[in-house]
Amino acid sequence: MTAVSPNDFATIQQLLEHDNHKNRKAMLDFVAKDPIYIPRYNVSLEFEREIALQRLKRIADRGFISVYDFENNPLNIFAAHEIAGMVDGSMGTKMTVQWNLFGGTVIKLGTERHRYLLPGIDSLQNVGCFALTELGYGNNAVEMETTALFDEQTREFIINTPSTLAQKYWITNSAIHAKWAVVFAQTIIRGKNEGVHAILVRIREEDMTVSKGVVIEEMGVKFECNGVDNGKHYLINVHCNLQYLYNYLLIIHFIHLGKLWFKNVRVPVENLLNRYSNIDENNNYTSVVKKTRDRFLKVANQLLSGRLAIASLNLGGTKACLSIAFRYANSRLAVGPTGKSDTPILAYQLQQRALIPLLATTIALNIGLNYCKVRWTEGTEEKHNEVVRLCCVIKPLVTWNFERVATTCRERCGGQGYLSINRFGSFIGFSHAGMTAEGDNSVLMQKVSKELLADVQSGVLKLPRISDVENAKKWDIRSLDNQLRLFNLREQVLIKELSTIMANANKGSSIFEVWMLRESDTVQALAKAHGHRIVLEQVVHTLQRLKGSSHWIMHNVACLYALNTIDSDLAWYITKNLISVESASLVKPLIRELVAELAPFSMKIVDALGVDPRVLYAPIANQWVEFNKTDNRGEILRDFRVGLSKL
Amino acid sequence: MTAVSPNDFATIQQLLEHDNHKNRKAMLDFVAKDPIYIPRYNVSLEFEREIALQRLKRIADRGFISVYDFENNPLNIFAAHEIAGMVDGSMGTKMTVQWNLFGGTVIKLGTERHRYLLPGIDSLQNVGCFALTELGYGNNAVEMETTALFDEQTREFIINTPSTLAQKYWITNSAIHAKWAVVFAQTIIRGKNEGVHAILVRIREEDMTVSKGVVIEEMGVKFECNGVDNGKHYLINVHCNLQYLYNYLLIIHFIHLGKLWFKNVRVPVENLLNRYSNIDENNNYTSVVKKTRDRFLKVANQLLSGRLAIASLNLGGTKACLSIAFRYANSRLAVGPTGKSDTPILAYQLQQRALIPLLATTIALNIGLNYCKVRWTEGTEEKHNEVVRLCCVIKPLVTWNFERVATTCRERCGGQGYLSINRFGSFIGFSHAGMTAEGDNSVLMQKVSKELLADVQSGVLKLPRISDVENAKKWDIRSLDNQLRLFNLREQVLIKELSTIMANANKGSSIFEVWMLRESDTVQALAKAHGHRIVLEQVVHTLQRLKGSSHWIMHNVACLYALNTIDSDLAWYITKNLISVESASLVKPLIRELVAELAPFSMKIVDALGVDPRVLYAPIANQWVEFNKTDNRGEILRDFRVGLSKL
Repeated sequence: MTAVSPNDFATIQQLLEHDNHKNRKAMLDFVAKDPIYIPRYNVSLEFEREIALQRLKRIADRGFISVYDFENNPLNIFAAHEIAGMVDGSMGTKMTVQWNLFGGTVIKLGTERHRYLLPGIDSLQNVGCFALTELGYGNNAVEMETTALFDEQTREFIINTPSTLAQKYWITNSAIHAKWAVVFAQTIIRGKNEGVHAILVRIREEDMTVSKGVVIEEMGVKFECNGVDNGKHYLINVHCNLQYLYNYLLIIHFIHLGKLWFKNVRVPVENLLNRYSNIDENNNYTSVVKKTRDRFLKVANQLLSGRLAIASLNLGGTKACLSIAFRYANSRLAVGPTGKSDTPILAYQLQQRALIPLLATTIALNIGLNYCKVRWTEGTEEKHNEVVRLCCVIKPLVTWNFERVATTCRERCGGQGYLSINRFGSFIGFSHAGMTAEGDNSVLMQKVSKELLADVQSGVLKLPRISDVENAKKWDIRSLDNQLRLFNLREQVLIKELSTIMANANKGSSIFEVWMLRESDTVQALAKAHGHRIVLEQVVHTLQRLKGSSHWIMHNVACLYALNTIDSDLAWYITKNLISVESASLVKPLIRELVAELAPFSMKIVDALGVDPRVLYAPIANQWVEFNKTDNRGEILRDFRVGLSKL
Repeated sequence: MTAVSPNDFATIQQLLEHDNHKNRKAMLDFVAKDPIYIPRYNVSLEFEREIALQRLKRIADRGFISVYDFENNPLNIFAAHEIAGMVDGSMGTKMTVQWNLFGGTVIKLGTERHRYLLPGIDSLQNVGCFALTELGYGNNAVEMETTALFDEQTREFIINTPSTLAQKYWITNSAIHAKWAVVFAQTIIRGKNEGVHAILVRIREEDMTVSKGVVIEEMGVKFECNGVDNGKHYLINVHCNLQYLYNYLLIIHFIHLGKLWFKNVRVPVENLLNRYSNIDENNNYTSVVKKTRDRFLKVANQLLSGRLAIASLNLGGTKACLSIAFRYANSRLAVGPTGKSDTPILAYQLQQRALIPLLATTIALNIGLNYCKVRWTEGTEEKHNEVVRLCCVIKPLVTWNFERVATTCRERCGGQGYLSINRFGSFIGFSHAGMTAEGDNSVLMQKVSKELLADVQSGVLKLPRISDVENAKKWDIRSLDNQLRLFNLREQVLIKELSTIMANANKGSSIFEVWMLRESDTVQALAKAHGHRIVLEQVVHTLQRLKGSSHWIMHNVACLYALNTIDSDLAWYITKNLISVESASLVKPLIRELVAELAPFSMKIVDALGVDPRVLYAPIANQWVEFNKTDNRGEILRDFRVGLSKL
């Protein structure tokens, strides 16, 4: 191929970053220069939580993320999340609760009278949390027990937690840092339950004492993200039947932090987030949403951006993992042909086969996520279903890939990968948070298939027409276009299968039985196929904007991602008569070829992921031999106080 | 099928435990009754290390494991490891270094004059470590720099660490607890380097002050097993070329713990572990091993049992994971057909498909490991290659499965799975230790394929004759016998392919090039196929000893394991013309059938894994609703001092 120039990789980096380039660069530079962001390991839980807040505060003070972004520059919300994910999962989790779940809800569900809170949200003077899930109502929050009784005399809501099962569970930021909570409760006005509304409740006073009537319990140590002043969300029901699926998904999409009880907590009527429902000066209740059940759905809108935010955090972590593992593989010399230790382990096919396909998949998902973010910002009423589908499908694909990347990188870096200081342990734990936060991946996939099926059957959604299907077996599998056609065929065949099954089921057995007890594999396979098709489609579109060697590199990346995905379903393609046995036998050799072709450029491609090496921190990503000359005790900083304002 | 009785599951449990049933039961009962074994979470690194030692000490005091077992009851060594793996990975890691690497080497390489140490090894009065790997010589320890110069006048060895690269790296137990180290060093006698020998060196005095001339550094926080007073082994070279592979593998099979330097440390000649090499009263050196290089190989014999020990630890952890996840899935009610929360999530196909195949694979690997342990105890000279192969192949299969089990269980338990108190985070980290400890799994697999190829080509090893191969495509894939025949075919086809490639390679390109740069996939695939064939073969043998419904259950378990394994290589079988497209399309439906058939018995099968529910500790494995009624802060014990003798 033609010579590859630095510009080619700059082009690729621009393309992957997609937006807010200046802010990304500035945020990375700011983090790299402030020692507070250097990871600490042998520290207490209390320390982890305090430093996570301080790290977030400094980013807030510099305005790298703002709740006003939702109105002015929504894509920047996700850009800031992606950078945060490279640096500290705890800080990133607190970020997404503060700016998306709490701040985003206040700015979108609230009205003029609530905007006084916004500056304090950006400055972290008003740390908030999102009090939705209850211990007993994880999968059916619309049935939650917490009540907000409207007192006409005082024009106050009286908030109560009537039972143990009604305790708000996993509420992020609540255990230590939050002053405010958006509390979801059954709202009773003039003796009538008007459904679940979102009400601002003060949970701590200015001096950080817990407000009267509020009880807060902390939840202890977690797999990772222990800088978050309490757990991830409580996935009380990984499963639920269809009629509850949507509500359920709304619920489990929140990151929580601690347990909350309310005992006759009184808040003024003005604390009702009244964009859609209001109580006027004569205590008359009005709502633009007629059905009480729908009112609940309306107040949970931050879920969509929440999923994109989680995906962005996890994408940042994925890029950091790959950057660390490739840099180590490239600097770690091992035995070569002559027996001397003169060969970087990245030269070994074992290492290339493990890491380069993951690099290709990550780049493809990056482009797919960029597309989902843009579609979300355009989110119009009639496109609502599509945006929901995109948000529900991209989060699982990105977070599952993060888990595989972090796990494989840890293993391919051997013992060094096992030291906390080299960060893979944290990234593995963080990926698990992503897989569960904002909705269990597999449950989200159930939703994707359900909505997809509905829209295809109703004709709302038209899937691409694939030409010459009868000759699919004759298609040249080397061609990216054909690979995309195969992705489309898999999606469409699975839709047809599932439609047929459901059609027959409707006559006979219940939908619940088919969906939850018999066709789980098909349901999951369809959602994945749909997501992968959309991702590859976007990668192919993107290629049209590239020329020369940047096109050559990204074309190989695309083919590697596509063939790898096809390979994992290869037997299915053969049995469905879509790929011939002859073509099938080419897939793995082609993958090996692509890996070998990309290998010489892999370090440059990794650089194009846009992770500033200064924020990798892991010694194996830098001068690890030097690092091992001193008595370091597994820490970069021996003085943990460095850069901290207190502690 | 016929009614299943409790006896059937008792039979299965007996079969899986295989040996030392009484000791296993007694050890579990002892652990369950002593609160010191209750996991603690929000504690310091120092606390974790102290409690890991105390937990081990109590097991030692009760004689559940003894260094004399190597002479009297070798299988008990692994039984104790398996139980330890259910309870605490840190304790288990310290156990395997103390009794296998340190104790096992002293009793086997040492002679009468060293046996005075044995009682102190069992009582932990003499905690020891294994000082082999050096920072610069991870893949080629035979070239290590550390020297033991024999002083004829004083009849002492003078031990020195001549350079930074020569520091002993990752030496387990050394950072805090060890008094003794078996030090591997170039041994110079009368000006001649007689090769690497193992010498007992005192590194701490009775008052635990570090001995004169010894420098010890600690290595800090790790992904998991932080109760180990330092890291896992330093996998300095994940790769190496063939001529170094064997030495390399010998090296990386040690679990280390900290960094060690020696400056003119003097030890008496009697400290030489002189089973094979000796210095007589006239200072004459003699050795039964002629080649100096071979002397090094001879002193590293504990590697084989080390791999079985790691596999046993990880099998224990795998069983605990499955026990926790199944018990939660069975007690966690979620929405059912009517919309009420009345259905355990274990009833959902999604949950069954995720967990039950992992249960079947774990049972199959358990039976495979039992076989490897027995073969090791019989280990005769002429069977040495086979035993090496078995130890090298079973450790990767068991530890990789542990990683998949722990990761999947964490995900299927959702947010609850993310709380440390429910233990999956620890198990995931522990599985990573297993994947790297005692040899990087993929490097071990390279060795397995190399040795396998050599023995087949030399005719030392005869592979089973498979009849009627030409009609393989017509075989009924439902039959377990045919599934085993397919396993055999895959192994044999891969051997033939690799032999041919190597034969041609010998003419043209270097072996290094073929093995490390071109055929990595085939090398890895062959080793896995070999391991799976041996495992399934043993499962089939075991079935012959079962009758009635225990046979029916285990037969389904075997088929599920076999078909799952075939499914992951299904496209390969089709393209190699060994499975017809028609049979191929039956595989996934058959897997679903088997999962559905086993589902009603899955809780009983999980009980038959033999994990005493009292040592699961995870609240979700027991009364998790009760647990959530109180302010528990993510701990079972709020008073960490409970059951500790000091701290």
